[in-house]
Amino acid sequence: MTFSSKLIEKAVEAFASLPGIGRKTALRLVLHLLKQDKNTTEQFAAALVAMREGIRECRLCHNLADGEICHICADTRRDRSLVCVVENIRDLMAIEDTGQYRGLYHVLGGIISPIDGIGPGDLNIDSLSARAQDGEIREVIMAISPTIEGETTIYYLSKKLQPLGVQVSAIARGVSFGGDLEYADELTLGRSIVARVPYAAR
Amino acid sequence: MTFSSKLIEKAVEAFASLPGIGRKTALRLVLHLLKQDKNTTEQFAAALVAMREGIRECRLCHNLADGEICHICADTRRDRSLVCVVENIRDLMAIEDTGQYRGLYHVLGGIISPIDGIGPGDLNIDSLSARAQDGEIREVIMAISPTIEGETTIYYLSKKLQPLGVQVSAIARGVSFGGDLEYADELTLGRSIVARVPYAAR
Repeated sequence: MTFSSKLIEKAVEAFASLPGIGRKTALRLVLHLLKQDKNTTEQFAAALVAMREGIRECRLCHNLADGEICHICADTRRDRSLVCVVENIRDLMAIEDTGQYRGLYHVLGGIISPIDGIGPGDLNIDSLSARAQDGEIREVIMAISPTIEGETTIYYLSKKLQPLGVQVSAIARGVSFGGDLEYADELTLGRSIVARVPYAAR
Repeated sequence: MTFSSKLIEKAVEAFASLPGIGRKTALRLVLHLLKQDKNTTEQFAAALVAMREGIRECRLCHNLADGEICHICADTRRDRSLVCVVENIRDLMAIEDTGQYRGLYHVLGGIISPIDGIGPGDLNIDSLSARAQDGEIREVIMAISPTIEGETTIYYLSKKLQPLGVQVSAIARGVSFGGDLEYADELTLGRSIVARVPYAAR
């Protein structure tokens, strides 16, 4: 793609550096901004810079926050005896969006993965132990993907947390609601039979 | 989607205001920027603002330009007797990318469309007439989409330009190279038979 303008080229390259945005899409976005008022682009740019400059990590749970403590940790109506451990902020948001959980969170910032050179020291595990030692936490729910790395992380965390008198649980796994048995993967289907639950008529 | 931070929410909304970007994609882009260095976001924002502030319209052909004249009009190696009329900058770039055309351009900024309230006065037609009157231009090629509005625009322009002693031509239409006859639309296929060309063995 040849550009008639260095300024356009730089703007297109800026957009195209984002994940999932190719040069054709980038050009479409740039031409869209050119069609809009100058203020639109300025506000767009300002929102991004303000976000990047202003954003902080919650001192307690490592969630993204505007201040020292995130809005979840600051919410007094939440159950402070429950902590849900998640890999990243996206998982936290997915759980929040279900509206089913009213406890607190702890964002690990990744999972233990020796292949990628990520050990326990690289994750927010010390702060989780510190929170568990406070005595306020009764149960820690592991909401971590059931991969080999995920299971390793859950095992490591349970060994750290159980001696502190905290109950460790993991989210339920099985065939998804509305999911067709035929299309469930073998591991999920096999485990869902082994870990069957008594049927309660409703 | 619930956000733990007003700053994040604003940045996500900024991205989501762009065409083709939903809130999930917007969040992914924001989290990507958060993972990068602060400078990345600043440079990204600066590139967009610089583009929007600095970009100008070429005084001759209305292409986007960094200065008063675009790099195509400024290129002395180009055939200044040929002008290709296009609807917008994206069409210009598509033709440039073929590498087959070495003349100049004229960007109309749209096509005549009474339904959308776009008349000849809203397009860069006066400046095209002025260029044609200069005497340097020998041929004007209409590279405009073959829709009803496109054909209307071509007809209007030819009526304006032909009295000035300029030859008006239109890009060839027909079944695309490599295209299957079976899948060509009726109009294209029908016209490609009517407008058949003598076969030259190569």
